[in-house]
Amino acid sequence: MSHEIGAPQKRLIRALKGEVLDQAPIWLMRQAGRYLPEYKKTRAQAGSFLNLCYTPELAEEVTLQPIRRYGFDASILFSDILVIPDGLGQKVSFVEGEGPVLEPITRVEELAKLDLTRVVPHLAPVYETVRRLRKSLPAETTLIGFAGAPWTVATYMVGGKGSPDQGATKAWAYRAPDEFQKLIDLLVEATILHLGAQVKAGAEVLQIFDTWAGSLPELPFRRFALEPMKRIVAALKAQFPDISIIGFPRGAGSMAVDYFRETGINGLSLDTGVAPAWARRELQSLGCVQGNLDPLLLVAGGPEMRRGIEHILRELGQGPFIFNLGHGIVPQTPPDHVAELVDIVRGWRG
Amino acid sequence: MSHEIGAPQKRLIRALKGEVLDQAPIWLMRQAGRYLPEYKKTRAQAGSFLNLCYTPELAEEVTLQPIRRYGFDASILFSDILVIPDGLGQKVSFVEGEGPVLEPITRVEELAKLDLTRVVPHLAPVYETVRRLRKSLPAETTLIGFAGAPWTVATYMVGGKGSPDQGATKAWAYRAPDEFQKLIDLLVEATILHLGAQVKAGAEVLQIFDTWAGSLPELPFRRFALEPMKRIVAALKAQFPDISIIGFPRGAGSMAVDYFRETGINGLSLDTGVAPAWARRELQSLGCVQGNLDPLLLVAGGPEMRRGIEHILRELGQGPFIFNLGHGIVPQTPPDHVAELVDIVRGWRG
Repeated sequence: MSHEIGAPQKRLIRALKGEVLDQAPIWLMRQAGRYLPEYKKTRAQAGSFLNLCYTPELAEEVTLQPIRRYGFDASILFSDILVIPDGLGQKVSFVEGEGPVLEPITRVEELAKLDLTRVVPHLAPVYETVRRLRKSLPAETTLIGFAGAPWTVATYMVGGKGSPDQGATKAWAYRAPDEFQKLIDLLVEATILHLGAQVKAGAEVLQIFDTWAGSLPELPFRRFALEPMKRIVAALKAQFPDISIIGFPRGAGSMAVDYFRETGINGLSLDTGVAPAWARRELQSLGCVQGNLDPLLLVAGGPEMRRGIEHILRELGQGPFIFNLGHGIVPQTPPDHVAELVDIVRGWRG
Repeated sequence: MSHEIGAPQKRLIRALKGEVLDQAPIWLMRQAGRYLPEYKKTRAQAGSFLNLCYTPELAEEVTLQPIRRYGFDASILFSDILVIPDGLGQKVSFVEGEGPVLEPITRVEELAKLDLTRVVPHLAPVYETVRRLRKSLPAETTLIGFAGAPWTVATYMVGGKGSPDQGATKAWAYRAPDEFQKLIDLLVEATILHLGAQVKAGAEVLQIFDTWAGSLPELPFRRFALEPMKRIVAALKAQFPDISIIGFPRGAGSMAVDYFRETGINGLSLDTGVAPAWARRELQSLGCVQGNLDPLLLVAGGPEMRRGIEHILRELGQGPFIFNLGHGIVPQTPPDHVAELVDIVRGWRG
């Protein structure tokens, strides 16, 4: 286990265990990224994006860059949710300015092309990055490992790329749900293996991103988002009883309540559109919440950004809470605004 | 007023006034559209998309096509939310396969280019279409007029096209909220004029589409989505006390509760991601709800579609309710699936 007996727990982990801290821990989704000039330099050295993910010294370097600048309470491994399909043997590439491109899998017969036993060996460089980070990170910084949730990863595997309405994936899931379930089941297993290997290498907290969960109606949401998450959390907690897991069912609206209550996660990450007072009443009563400044308020800066930050701190700062964005940081974010955000959160007395 | 004293009210209007009907009224967002071969024929005759909107005999024809096929309880005027910027004098065009393109307005000085007095005269052909429809529609069919909500229309006016994150519009709204408010105020006035003219021409119910409301955090949601809607509803109800108005704040999650409670609307249209049981408890207790089958379930058809329809009817069919989709019908929808949907809803006994 990553938590040594007797050592004081790190602030982010204490919040996830339900403790109310004087000062909210803070980290940002995609905190290692294109808004930082030093990231762009390392990215250029790497050649392809996947090469950056799979070269431990480079992935370690970009993970550390925002910690050096801002001293966040947590460091999230630099990687991508599509390393799982890549690990399973589906061809994945990243086209500059266009996002990911995969050879789509749209029929149950094609699942035979995917090999679960290949995931952990293929992703060995990712775990090596985690091991390095545990040594190089400051003692107070929590290391977060992550994966995409089965539904979200499936939308890329089936659609072959990002899509606004997940039409291709829903076409399969709705026409042949029991066949599509086999892809979800495979992804549940792959996610457990991939996250388990990250914990063994030193990840202290895990976050599972279900970016496209919000487009599902209630019944498919339960079947393809909530239930798979429950199985992943149960399997990981059976192996690593002390691990804390954060779920991010983006856009789930009121369904986030059942998701938090039933999946066994320790923390729920709130998207930009969740009203903080509602989250306090309906979600923070169930455990730690994390969020949810609009990344575009961080781009704008100024009085509206400050108002947005203070609104969140006022509503959520009295319970177990981690400050974060409501979605990933965007490339046009001025690095100075991030510094101001950290100062406001660290200076807040509710 | 459109409702003659003494005449029995139409079923859709009764539901909007809070009545629980034996059988839910049904219509579908974008029911006149590319999934119908007869639409494609008329569309080809029209030349440009805006020409279709502005030629009363053609707009009337495409509005009637789904009524002839399916006998929906309501007919929504065929038009577009971008006729308001076009009416205000902003250049709007529709590029095949790419969607709308506008010359973006990004600074307060550019608002001088827009002319509120031009809206109603420029949109005269739209009101002519409404007048024709009131004569040609079956006696039992409710005629719905519509407009886009100020925030959603602004995202196109400022961004110059649809955008996944409304980045350009948020940049303005967050950096200079009081200047951006002037655009919203102008759109509030334009929307009141445009919807008022539709009511005078014979529209019996109005729906206001806030397709991008869900991307706003709580404070900007209140300022730029909820408050403008409140003003629009108040102005229209002052002029037309009997008019029923449906709001569609897509993706608003829990904020839909305040939106329904505070804006004075009669009905709330639910997007695909709203859980029906939650909507029954939190929203239907405030008035009529409408929704919310995933348009992609209608594409898929079969047992999953039927399960989805029955789930909605079971949860929402006991209160004031209108059956609809959770978003617009998509072009790849088989027309037979629409017929099956109508049969199931009409045959449902809860």
